[in-house]
Amino acid sequence: MATKDQIRDFMASDFPQNKCLVESVGNQSATIRHKIGIDELRPGGTVSGPVMMAVADVALYVAILGEIGLVPLAVTTNLNINFLRKPSSEKDIIGKCKLIKIGRSLAVGEVTLFSEGNNEPVAHAVGTYSIPPKRDN
Amino acid sequence: MATKDQIRDFMASDFPQNKCLVESVGNQSATIRHKIGIDELRPGGTVSGPVMMAVADVALYVAILGEIGLVPLAVTTNLNINFLRKPSSEKDIIGKCKLIKIGRSLAVGEVTLFSEGNNEPVAHAVGTYSIPPKRDN
Amino acid sequence: MATKDQIRDFMASDFPQNKCLVESVGNQSATIRHKIGIDELRPGGTVSGPVMMAVADVALYVAILGEIGLVPLAVTTNLNINFLRKPSSEKDIIGKCKLIKIGRSLAVGEVTLFSEGNNEPVAHAVGTYSIPPKRDN
Amino acid sequence: MATKDQIRDFMASDFPQNKCLVESVGNQSATIRHKIGIDELRPGGTVSGPVMMAVADVALYVAILGEIGLVPLAVTTNLNINFLRKPSSEKDIIGKCKLIKIGRSLAVGEVTLFSEGNNEPVAHAVGTYSIPPKRDN
Repeated sequence: MATKDQIRDFMASDFPQNKCLVESVGNQSATIRHKIGIDELRPGGTVSGPVMMAVADVALYVAILGEIGLVPLAVTTNLNINFLRKPSSEKDIIGKCKLIKIGRSLAVGEVTLFSEGNNEPVAHAVGTYSIPPKRDN
Repeated sequence: MATKDQIRDFMASDFPQNKCLVESVGNQSATIRHKIGIDELRPGGTVSGPVMMAVADVALYVAILGEIGLVPLAVTTNLNINFLRKPSSEKDIIGKCKLIKIGRSLAVGEVTLFSEGNNEPVAHAVGTYSIPPKRDN
Repeated sequence: MATKDQIRDFMASDFPQNKCLVESVGNQSATIRHKIGIDELRPGGTVSGPVMMAVADVALYVAILGEIGLVPLAVTTNLNINFLRKPSSEKDIIGKCKLIKIGRSLAVGEVTLFSEGNNEPVAHAVGTYSIPPKRDN
Repeated sequence: MATKDQIRDFMASDFPQNKCLVESVGNQSATIRHKIGIDELRPGGTVSGPVMMAVADVALYVAILGEIGLVPLAVTTNLNINFLRKPSSEKDIIGKCKLIKIGRSLAVGEVTLFSEGNNEPVAHAVGTYSIPPKRDN
């Protein structure tokens, strides 16, 4: 397992371009925040789909690291995302992940995305990560 | 319908943060290129999942605009992506979209992603866009 | 909206080949049971994938009818299902659906499938139904 | 690898309830036929979603067996299906699978479903099978 601070440090050093902030992790869950500014918006005020996909992907990754520790080679094998409602252009995107299964080689979880402060999800995703085999040193 | 130049101009003005280049569009298809540099790489040399999701999403969008014209309010409703092989860290990502159905309100297409120069797909996606109703002025 | 008895009667008359039993419906949810016998098993004792897909599809349909009433022309547009664990060959399959969004033309929900009596899901699905426009007569 | 006759015999003995007929297999592909009769129809004349999901699932399985031989423990891990057009109530459903990747432990393929005689797909699916490790005896 890994703590929130350990994961935050790991993300900062290994994923410097990552703009998602880890809000909480543990108990087979994680909450991620992505600030929304001009770079994230399409004209007309929609948060871009790829930004929301990134939040879902990172939320899964963080929840998984919270369970199995800092495993950099865990990679996404499948992501399915449904876009439900137009997000606010003025609120951060919050991604809440709940893991559904952590197996020996695959982990599956779902992520619900919100515009902060609004209870109705803007998107919902289910993703699968592959977990590389452990190596004894 | 819209031509490649029209779509390129539209993307440049309406999606200034977009880093995908339209290589070709037409005949219910589109080819997109995304240059790969330090911003796109995870340590260890993998192209980040969200970059590949963005290429798939833009490839669908461009193929759809090629068929129905410049409709800015067409938005993704669903994307499902399978990551198949580790991409090269030194090659651009190429996304080739083929539309499967263009309906009155939904368009469905598939996108195969490659590291340029390698025939084996690095990812495969199927996505659905909703097309807003036409308005007569 | 429709009650459990109304939906049960509707399923019996309109879907006579359907083997799923409606256990409960309401509050944007539904629970479905599918008895498991020789017809549902692959040799080796696995419940067949298509049986589980059918349970997920019917659970969504029933939950949606519970909200919008008996609308026979509501049809599945997309289903994504992850198979997580091998189900028991001796227990009924239970499908629990929770709707995520009910829009004017699309409804999205998730379904978790269990072998009765075991808390760990055997499968998880997310599906979208299209809801035909209402007609005034 | 396995031939069409070997796969047909295997399906008949191991999956007696299966109603899909193997039309062709080989070259990382397979074609499957499902006859459509009263058992497959919903009132109003639509082929039921679960029947089409079953065709997609079997088409994938047969294509995979065609490549790796008769491996009964290969099982579906994920299936994503989009329903595109209303199928005919009077034509068989044809499923054409093309494998996208055959790895050591996962195989991914897509299946396009047609009402026989009509070129426009009624559904399109992408699925992943897990392939159990080989055992040496």
